[in-house]
Amino acid sequence: MAIITLTSDWGTSDHYLPAVKGALLSRMPEANIVDISHEIVPFDLNQASFVLRNCYHHFPKGTIHIVAVNTEADLENPHIAIRYDGHYFIGTDNGLFSLMFDSIPDEIFEIDIPQDSDYFTFPTRDVFVKAAVHLAKGGAMEELGDPLLKLFERTAFRPAISGDAIIGKVIYTDRYENVFTNITEGLFKSECRNRPFSIEFSVSRYRIRNINKSYGDVPEGELVALFSTTGNLQIAINRGNAASLLGLGTDDSIRIQFG
Amino acid sequence: MAIITLTSDWGTSDHYLPAVKGALLSRMPEANIVDISHEIVPFDLNQASFVLRNCYHHFPKGTIHIVAVNTEADLENPHIAIRYDGHYFIGTDNGLFSLMFDSIPDEIFEIDIPQDSDYFTFPTRDVFVKAAVHLAKGGAMEELGDPLLKLFERTAFRPAISGDAIIGKVIYTDRYENVFTNITEGLFKSECRNRPFSIEFSVSRYRIRNINKSYGDVPEGELVALFSTTGNLQIAINRGNAASLLGLGTDDSIRIQFG
Amino acid sequence: MAIITLTSDWGTSDHYLPAVKGALLSRMPEANIVDISHEIVPFDLNQASFVLRNCYHHFPKGTIHIVAVNTEADLENPHIAIRYDGHYFIGTDNGLFSLMFDSIPDEIFEIDIPQDSDYFTFPTRDVFVKAAVHLAKGGAMEELGDPLLKLFERTAFRPAISGDAIIGKVIYTDRYENVFTNITEGLFKSECRNRPFSIEFSVSRYRIRNINKSYGDVPEGELVALFSTTGNLQIAINRGNAASLLGLGTDDSIRIQFG
Repeated sequence: MAIITLTSDWGTSDHYLPAVKGALLSRMPEANIVDISHEIVPFDLNQASFVLRNCYHHFPKGTIHIVAVNTEADLENPHIAIRYDGHYFIGTDNGLFSLMFDSIPDEIFEIDIPQDSDYFTFPTRDVFVKAAVHLAKGGAMEELGDPLLKLFERTAFRPAISGDAIIGKVIYTDRYENVFTNITEGLFKSECRNRPFSIEFSVSRYRIRNINKSYGDVPEGELVALFSTTGNLQIAINRGNAASLLGLGTDDSIRIQFG
Repeated sequence: MAIITLTSDWGTSDHYLPAVKGALLSRMPEANIVDISHEIVPFDLNQASFVLRNCYHHFPKGTIHIVAVNTEADLENPHIAIRYDGHYFIGTDNGLFSLMFDSIPDEIFEIDIPQDSDYFTFPTRDVFVKAAVHLAKGGAMEELGDPLLKLFERTAFRPAISGDAIIGKVIYTDRYENVFTNITEGLFKSECRNRPFSIEFSVSRYRIRNINKSYGDVPEGELVALFSTTGNLQIAINRGNAASLLGLGTDDSIRIQFG
Repeated sequence: MAIITLTSDWGTSDHYLPAVKGALLSRMPEANIVDISHEIVPFDLNQASFVLRNCYHHFPKGTIHIVAVNTEADLENPHIAIRYDGHYFIGTDNGLFSLMFDSIPDEIFEIDIPQDSDYFTFPTRDVFVKAAVHLAKGGAMEELGDPLLKLFERTAFRPAISGDAIIGKVIYTDRYENVFTNITEGLFKSECRNRPFSIEFSVSRYRIRNINKSYGDVPEGELVALFSTTGNLQIAINRGNAASLLGLGTDDSIRIQFG
């Protein structure tokens, strides 16, 4: 049974989400439609790419992921279908996919199919649904349109190495107000080499001097650093709200000083 | 596979929604249950009718739509099942359906079946589930109860024509704070007849002098009018929050002056 | 088709929920995954137990309920699988289940299976998914680990009888701000014995002197007491917000004086 996932900034109050589900089921009654998130902050490509990159790979290979954030197309930002890591992605080439993937996709095709309506403001319903069902029924990517060589690029800020320090930043805050940084476990380990270290925030005088395995390694209400299951260095307070209590938000600097 | 949709003002925190899903699956394990919205403002029949009217028709014919807003029945407002436009609707005849449909339903039946509990406060679980499963299994509408000739009527405010102007109003605001009016594309075209026009809001000194096809037709942060995919004239700000920034809310007047 | 439900405090914005759904579908593509609630207040075992106890029994026998609130395990609070009332429950033995069940479960097994990752912070994805799919495919509870004799106990406050009064308290507030107390219909009836009574709140000078069957038994905006479909005495305002207007919240006292 084909799995089609939906990621959007629609929220769950309006008619957008059920209209798309209805349109999918009308074309493919047996589709298994799974919501990724519809609470993406409106127009926020960084947040959408973070959420989807950290869950898509748990779905079976062959899953089709419709990504509905900033979907209006223009000449520079067409509607596209992508094959990457055994998964299919359908959306608008607005930079979101370049933020999401670590390497160049296996295939990219512009979607150039007749639209269902005269409206340009709801391509998810009028274009992506058709493309997704085409792929879900085993249709070829090639039949959607012309191949593209590369994605529209947006630059994700990568951590910098500065002397004996890594300078990273906050990229995401979850519902518990755990703070995710762009410093990965791999980068930390390659720089740390068993030296002592201090994790420092631009906005707070706190320091963290070790990295734990679980929240419960520290008492309730205390600060803890650990590697999230996403692979990102996370700053949290055990059962507390780290973002509010530390005053940390997206783009704030995090520095790890070694030695 | 039978599709049963759910529309309510329950929210998604409480036990109401999963209790109904469980009750449906206990009676019909193969049912495909799809959420329309559970974020309807409590008791708001206008909002519920707007959301459902703009998505139900995307579902396959034969879909059964349970509508759970203001469900307590009384002598004047019984539980009913409706066939309209090839779809089935189950709910309470409180005026919501009269707001939703443009014409008289093909069939209306009062639901008069034994209830599952002694409680009167949760008819969705205790009555609508049974009626929906009855229809989903191919049962006849007639077996639910006596036929009714007409719906309980609530009046939707329709736009007025006043000389060379259409006077409409705001009927809905979506998550992006796009503002939907009750002025439809059809009405606008029949009155406009290629004359110049000015869209004016009672609460703001802004004027809009043309109607675009997409948000991106204007720069970010600028005001745009377009016809939504719902067919309604929409006032928006490209990537901005029109409702807050213009001070526009439900029932505020919109005037289109021609000539 | 196996039904697997999910209850959590993850919210629906982050990657946690879709990661778990993807992991379930990768292991069991035909699983029917149903959301109970993901809006549990973070770490709130009382709220989670209230929501799940009032809906799980509507699902078909054999349903598997994954409960993901405070999931980090330690020696005293292991991961467990439970059989109770014909349903399966998978979670951490942190007291939530002792709050939920009225009697001792039929079977309790510690879950001691190889984990999918080196991380300890996401056992739902790395442990519970495997255990749930094991059971959903007909695997034996015994294969998950060693049997346990009893649950980790947390004490739910039970109403007290004091002379001619029941002293209870508020345990939950729903989206409509209806207030649920821990006074059950059974207790009320056994104590009332057709005597007149007065329902009194510690925080308000209002009194309620009868119990109705539906919200509509009183005019809009008026105070009403009724027994919820959960069996709990509920204080509400017909189409109003009882919790805010009465100043009632969790743990506030409710007294029923008889005679």
